[in-house]
Parts: sequence; C-alpha cells; structure tokens
Amino acid sequence: MNVETKNTTTDGSLTRGKTSASYGITVRAKLLKTGGVPARVLTAIAEIGGEVEGIYMVSSELTFTIQDIKFNCVNAQHGEDIVAAVARIKDVEVMHVSDATFLDHLRGKIEVTPRRTIKSADDLSRAYTPGVARVCLEIAADPSKVYSLTSKGNMVAIVTDGSRILGLGNIGPQAGLPVMEGKAMLFKQFGGVDAFPLALGTQDTDEIVRTVKAISPGFGAINLEDIASPRCYEVEQRLSEELDIPVFHDDQHGTAIATVAAAINSAKLVKKQLRNLRVVGAGVGAAGLACAKLLMAAGVRHYVGFNVGGAIHKGRTDLTPQERWLAENSNPDNFDGTLQEALEGADMFLGLAAAGIIKAEDLAVMRRDPIVFALANPIPEVMPLEAKRYARVVATGGSDYPNQINNALVFPGFFKGLLESRAQRVTDEMKLAAARALAAVVSKDELDEDHVIPSIFDSRVAKAVASAVIEEAQKSGVARRNVAKRPR
Amino acid sequence: MNVETKNTTTDGSLTRGKTSASYGITVRAKLLKTGGVPARVLTAIAEIGGEVEGIYMVSSELTFTIQDIKFNCVNAQHGEDIVAAVARIKDVEVMHVSDATFLDHLRGKIEVTPRRTIKSADDLSRAYTPGVARVCLEIAADPSKVYSLTSKGNMVAIVTDGSRILGLGNIGPQAGLPVMEGKAMLFKQFGGVDAFPLALGTQDTDEIVRTVKAISPGFGAINLEDIASPRCYEVEQRLSEELDIPVFHDDQHGTAIATVAAAINSAKLVKKQLRNLRVVGAGVGAAGLACAKLLMAAGVRHYVGFNVGGAIHKGRTDLTPQERWLAENSNPDNFDGTLQEALEGADMFLGLAAAGIIKAEDLAVMRRDPIVFALANPIPEVMPLEAKRYARVVATGGSDYPNQINNALVFPGFFKGLLESRAQRVTDEMKLAAARALAAVVSKDELDEDHVIPSIFDSRVAKAVASAVIEEAQKSGVARRNVAKRPR
Repeated sequence: MNVETKNTTTDGSLTRGKTSASYGITVRAKLLKTGGVPARVLTAIAEIGGEVEGIYMVSSELTFTIQDIKFNCVNAQHGEDIVAAVARIKDVEVMHVSDATFLDHLRGKIEVTPRRTIKSADDLSRAYTPGVARVCLEIAADPSKVYSLTSKGNMVAIVTDGSRILGLGNIGPQAGLPVMEGKAMLFKQFGGVDAFPLALGTQDTDEIVRTVKAISPGFGAINLEDIASPRCYEVEQRLSEELDIPVFHDDQHGTAIATVAAAINSAKLVKKQLRNLRVVGAGVGAAGLACAKLLMAAGVRHYVGFNVGGAIHKGRTDLTPQERWLAENSNPDNFDGTLQEALEGADMFLGLAAAGIIKAEDLAVMRRDPIVFALANPIPEVMPLEAKRYARVVATGGSDYPNQINNALVFPGFFKGLLESRAQRVTDEMKLAAARALAAVVSKDELDEDHVIPSIFDSRVAKAVASAVIEEAQKSGVARRNVAKRPR
Repeated sequence: MNVETKNTTTDGSLTRGKTSASYGITVRAKLLKTGGVPARVLTAIAEIGGEVEGIYMVSSELTFTIQDIKFNCVNAQHGEDIVAAVARIKDVEVMHVSDATFLDHLRGKIEVTPRRTIKSADDLSRAYTPGVARVCLEIAADPSKVYSLTSKGNMVAIVTDGSRILGLGNIGPQAGLPVMEGKAMLFKQFGGVDAFPLALGTQDTDEIVRTVKAISPGFGAINLEDIASPRCYEVEQRLSEELDIPVFHDDQHGTAIATVAAAINSAKLVKKQLRNLRVVGAGVGAAGLACAKLLMAAGVRHYVGFNVGGAIHKGRTDLTPQERWLAENSNPDNFDGTLQEALEGADMFLGLAAAGIIKAEDLAVMRRDPIVFALANPIPEVMPLEAKRYARVVATGGSDYPNQINNALVFPGFFKGLLESRAQRVTDEMKLAAARALAAVVSKDELDEDHVIPSIFDSRVAKAVASAVIEEAQKSGVARRNVAKRPR
C-alpha cells in the first residue's frame, strides 16, 4: 500500500521516502462544477508524491460539490505541501484538513470497562455493597484468592518515566502516554491481557522503584517501558528482586526475543549454525545489549558490538559497566577495528543504532548470504531496498517492508504466559524459549527471505509465546499455578 | 424481592433478617424421579426462610433429573443451613453449590479495552509506531493537548490504602480491590467515566501522597477511597494543594452530598426550613463530619454531633482536631446531655455510627414528622421498619428499603463534571451545588416519604450532578475548559 516517492526537503536536497498510512490526511474541499476538477486534484496529489486513498462526495450543490479527498503522505511537510498544491488548483477551495492519526487519538485509545453490566439492584448488591464484603473477607482470609477474585491476575502496569519515548528522547511522561496506550491496546487485542499505563512524574530511580512497589498490589506483572539507560537496568533489577510479581523491560527483552527469533530463522534459511555465525552489532544501548546477551544464550559465539567510540573490546577504558560486561563476554578475538572492517566476513549485521551509520556498499564484504537487521526507528541504519542488493535477508523495525521485527510479537504473549502461570519472575530461559517458539511459528513451508518472522496479525503468535513461557515457568519452578500448556 | 424471615443463630437466639440477592446460592442436585421431590425441595427451602428464585432442569435421565435450584438467603450461615436441609431430603443428592456473588467476581470485574480495534497494518501505524510519534511530539510541544489526545481527560484513579474497607476495617489493599473494582464499574456505567483502582501497598501518609503525585500525570482526577481517619484528611488536603487535578475523598464528600440531598427533600416534604431544623448526628468520623459541614453549608444551624464519648461541645477536652472544629462551629447551645436526651424535640436523626446505638422507641420524643437517616452499613443504627413506627421519613444506606442514600448517586456525575470542566480542584460550592441538583432530580410529583432521594438507576442523576459541578466550576473560575452545560 506504499508508494515510493522523491520528496524535496526544505534545504532543497532530495530524500527518498515512502507514503505511510500513519500520515493519512483528509482534505474537505469545495470543487466547482466546471468540468475535470476532481481529476486535476488527483493528478496534483499524485504529481507531488501523495498516495490517493479515495475521493468521496459529501454533498452536491448546483454549482459545486463538497468532497473528502483522502491521501497518504511521507511526512508532515509533505502533507502540507500537498494541501498547498490542492489549494492552488483553480476552482478548488480547501475547507478543512484533518489528520487520521490525530483523529484516532481523540479522547485517548483505551477505556476501563465493566466485565458485566449492572442491570438491577440485585446485580448491584453482588458487585458492590453489601455482597462485595464477603469477597473482600475471602481475600483477607486467603490472600492468594486476589488472583481469582479480582483483575490482578490478568492486569499489567505499563510503567514509564517518559525519559526515552520511542526514538524521541526525554519528552516526559505525558507526551509518552500515547505510546503506552498503544501498547495497552496491543496487549488486549493480541494477548487478551489487560494493561494500564502509568506515566510517572519522576525520573528518579529510587522514586520510580518506590512508586512501582506501592502500586504493585493490584497488578499481576510490571512492564517497564521507554526508561532511559542506565536507569532502566537498576529499576528492573531492584524491582525484580523486591517484588513477588514478574518485571520485564520490554525495550530490552521484547526487542531481544523478536530479534533472536528472526536470527534463528534467518540462520536456518541460509543453512548456517548460530554457533558459527559472526555477528556485528551496531548499538549497545539497552536493546542492543539485551540482543547480544540473548543471541549468545541462543548459541552465538562470535559477536562484536560497537558504540559511538568503536568496537567493544577488553582494551577500552571508556565503557559503562554494561559495555564492560559485553567486552568481557563477547568479541573473543578482541577485534578493535572499524565497523566497516568488522563487516568483512561477517554473517549478520544487527543495527540498533541510528540512521546512516553504514552504507549499503559496506555490506558487500560480508560472507555469503548476509543477514541484515537494520532496526533503528523510524529510519533504519541502511535503507532496506538498498541493503537487499547485497544481503540475502533484510529485516527492519518498520511495517513498510517484509520481516518487521516488532516487540508487539512478544509482549502480549509473553505477559499472558507470565500471568497464566503466575510466574514469580522472568527468567533468561523464558526469553530464549519465547524466541524459539516465535521462530517456530514460521513453518518450513513459510520460511523464505521475506518471512523470517511472523506477522503481528498472525493469531498463532501470542499463543505460541505464552505456551513457551508457561512451560518454562513450570519447568523451572517459578510458576505458582499449574496450567494446561495452552492458555486461554 | 426480599423475604423477611426469622433465622435462628448458632447461639439459639432469634434474629430478624432479610434474604438478599447478595447471598444468592445455586445448588445443583440430582433428584430421583420418585414423585414430588422438586416440591419437597422448594418447601424445605421456604420453611427455613430461603427465597427461591427458581428451579431449572439441567438434564433428565431415566431415573433422575439434574436441577439447578437458585435461592437467596440472609447470610452465609443461613445459606449453609439451607443447603444442609436440601441435602437431608430423601431422594435428593447435592452435587455442587455455587455462590452468585463469587461467580460475579471471577477474574475480576473490570478490564482495559481498546476504544478502536486495530484491523490492519495501517491502523497499527496510526495507533502505534510510527504515527504515534507525531501525537507524542504534539503533546510535548503543547502539554494541554494531553487532555484531548490521551485518556487522561476522562480517567480517574481510585486510590485506597486498604485501611478502612467498607465497615470491615483494615483488611489491606488487596482485600479492598473488589470494592474499588465495583466503584470503577459504577463510574463507567453511570457516569461514562473511566476509573482505575490503585490499591497501595503502604499506609504511610507521606508515602501515599508521594505515590499519588508520582502516578498523577496520566489521570484527570483522584478519588480517595476507604482510607482511615485522620490520615484521610491529611492525604486529601496535601494532594489537593500539591496537584493540579481535583482530589475527592468519596467516603467523606460523596456521603455528605447524598445525605444533604436527602435532607433537603425531607425538609421540603415535612415543610420545615433547613435553618430551623434541629439535627442530631451520631458518628463524627470522616463521613459524619463531612455531613455536618455540608448540612451547615446548606443552612442547618442546630447540629449536635455525638462520638463514643458523648455530645461534641466546647467543654470536651478529649476531641480530635476535627471534632474540636465541630465543637466550635456547631451545637450553639453547648448541649452536653445524652444522645437520647438530644433527640427530644429534634427534627432529624443522622446516624453514621453503628448498629444498635439507639432503639426505635427513642425516636418517640422527636418533634412532629421526624426524619431518620440510619446509614450505618451493613446494619443500620435502627431497623427501618421499626423506625418507621415513629418517623415520617426513614432512609438507610441499604438497597433493601426505600430511600437508599448511596455515594453511587454522587461520584459518577461529580467526577464527570470535574473532568468535563477540567476543574483544578474541588470546591465546597460544588458539593452544595451537587447536593441541590441531586435533590432536584426528585420532582414535586415524585417526592414522598419513600422517595426523598432518586434511585441509583435513574438516568437523570449523573447528568444533573455533572451539570451542577460544571456550572459551579465555571462560575468560580476553577474550570480550565469552557463546556456546554450538558456534558456528553
């Protein structure tokens, strides 16, 4: 559904870009009935690179029609350019411009709804006073009943401090809320999990830990989200130790699980063993480090990570504690060259860094059937169509190319598994099991260059991930409830 | 739907009680086809005071039927007695007993649901990445947009520390969750307000204040609930001062607003002026004090409160700061006699204390057309049918008599009004306006002894209360948004 276009930016340079439904604009305009006006509108939009979705009659008068013209564009500037182009057309008067993305956010994206309607005083006397008192006393007498008699057993807190929202940086808790609400939607739709966003008005580690502990009684699990590193490590570790419910920082582990699943399938496709795979990782922030760890847990031995200072190796003196760990536990040859040099003979490039850090040509020196995961968002390290000229498998974080490596493949099912098994904590074994289960959703027949990871809309995904988590929770003894392998 | 019954307690004494849907039991039993067995079952249940709701065939076999027998009982012991009586009947085998109240609580009473379904990658690209980033940036640039582009504008946190759940005492946050979930249901169903329970794992005042402040960015208002006094006063005061969203302790003000509404209508019915009404209040805890204050704001001048130490008057040296305030601001005659003595010549008795503190006969000395609000829960200060022998108007907190004075008449509409007007705080004027609006829902034609307060299911209630709050918020300047008088 995307149209590749050339778009002139304000400084006159030419950038490639694709139209996206996330920039869907509706222009309501008055078109004089002078003949051929609608066609001129459609032509004008197409000429400047907009993708017309449709033109709909709102009303027809004697001398004019009112029409809604819907189109997708590349970015906000492109949208404004298109609207301006439409406005310049003779016999066209733009009345109103609306943006589908903003319309979809009006009054928020989630609500808190009763599971049953109270239709009578009798219903009320059971759901509320006086009947509810017996339920309260039952939980007071047997605290484990809180899982079956309240929403706790299926309820996740999505906790952010707003310090690292998407790739947008420290924009604060309220500006981060739309992301958290989006996650809550996906939790429910894909995993049947209830999730509620808590956007904290503090970025102090102690205060975050204290707050999450204070609100924890009503939740079955905690999903940490978009918290800057290194704070995210300490928050996750302390909460995992101090709470009796599982804590999972999705930016780290959700990304890692989806990435490892795609790596497993990519290696299978190109008939290489993970243990022999030479991986070059650009970006060793929270997500990059988690990917490196989980790749190594899955069998990868040759991993060389890069931060802005170069290759992560034992001789570096400018490393964070986490990077230091990576230096000690990866890069067995103590490689200290450039990223471009590291790609020579490498089997896989994993980017969790920033747009433009490599050129497609850099990939030419990789070993046969290169695997390239360029996951920087919204613009990948290397544009996938260009990378495809050199690589056998290309994956990105976006939905506009095949092989989207997206956390949404992981967190709904992963948390469903944690909740159904009432796991006390998240284990590394669960993450690996989830990655393998996610990879296995892609059958031998389905596996090809454009399908190393399932679609987010594949209904098998959440169940497979949840089952793997449940099985692992029971095997390792962190489950507090014995459930059938298949969750509800 | 209630059956008054006599029930023998374990110590052999006879207590009166009514069957209630909040004790609805379903017995699944095997009944041999020997003739007349179903009738014997129904007779047995009725003889011991159970109210049969129905008997439903589950399956019919050659020699027996399986039937679900549904009945309401008075309390748990009564329910067990009835089941035992059924089990003793010849040719009856009890297979399973279930409790409707507990069934209604299985897996909790609320869920977090998407307002729109994500049906395609395009939908996803607007609700989540990459489209959501534009919405985040919009809020970062203009923080007031968080109200229109997220759920904040319609979202209430129901905060408890579990220290005073219903009349059950300090049973803790998790045991209090079913009450909070019940409130959330009522918020949504009656007010269209999204409300989420936060059961805090702390009962420390500073920690409660700190936690609520930390989670406040995503909420439009805070409903404090079932927090013991005097902690509730300090928590409410500090949060009201330190937050820019309204804070409302429902146990105090919700009760007060509903009570004053009923008092306004009762006085109207008996043709007395509030300013001349002599009110005796038993119980000056959080709710009792709030009622006293709001009654006085409504015009009552003659109010004498009682705690366990007797009448609240200026000579007492054992008063809390709140009671001291009451001593200074009520009881103008400095009355220091007993509760029974205070009732002589009184126009209204307001009980927010405990069952049995007065006898119905004590009411005989009140002035013409006595008004008796016996609001102790679950058992009122005086049983209403007995009180009715002496009083013209009787109201309770229960749903099993006319005139139920219930917070649920207040909080859905009150918060709707706060949210729609984006009020910065709750004012005393709003409370009085809400009480008057609630009273006014009962029209002149509808007003009678059994109808001094509307039904919870009266659809006019929430709208009337919300409109009053909005109007008052705009008049006093605490509104941050100009809305039409009628909320959505």
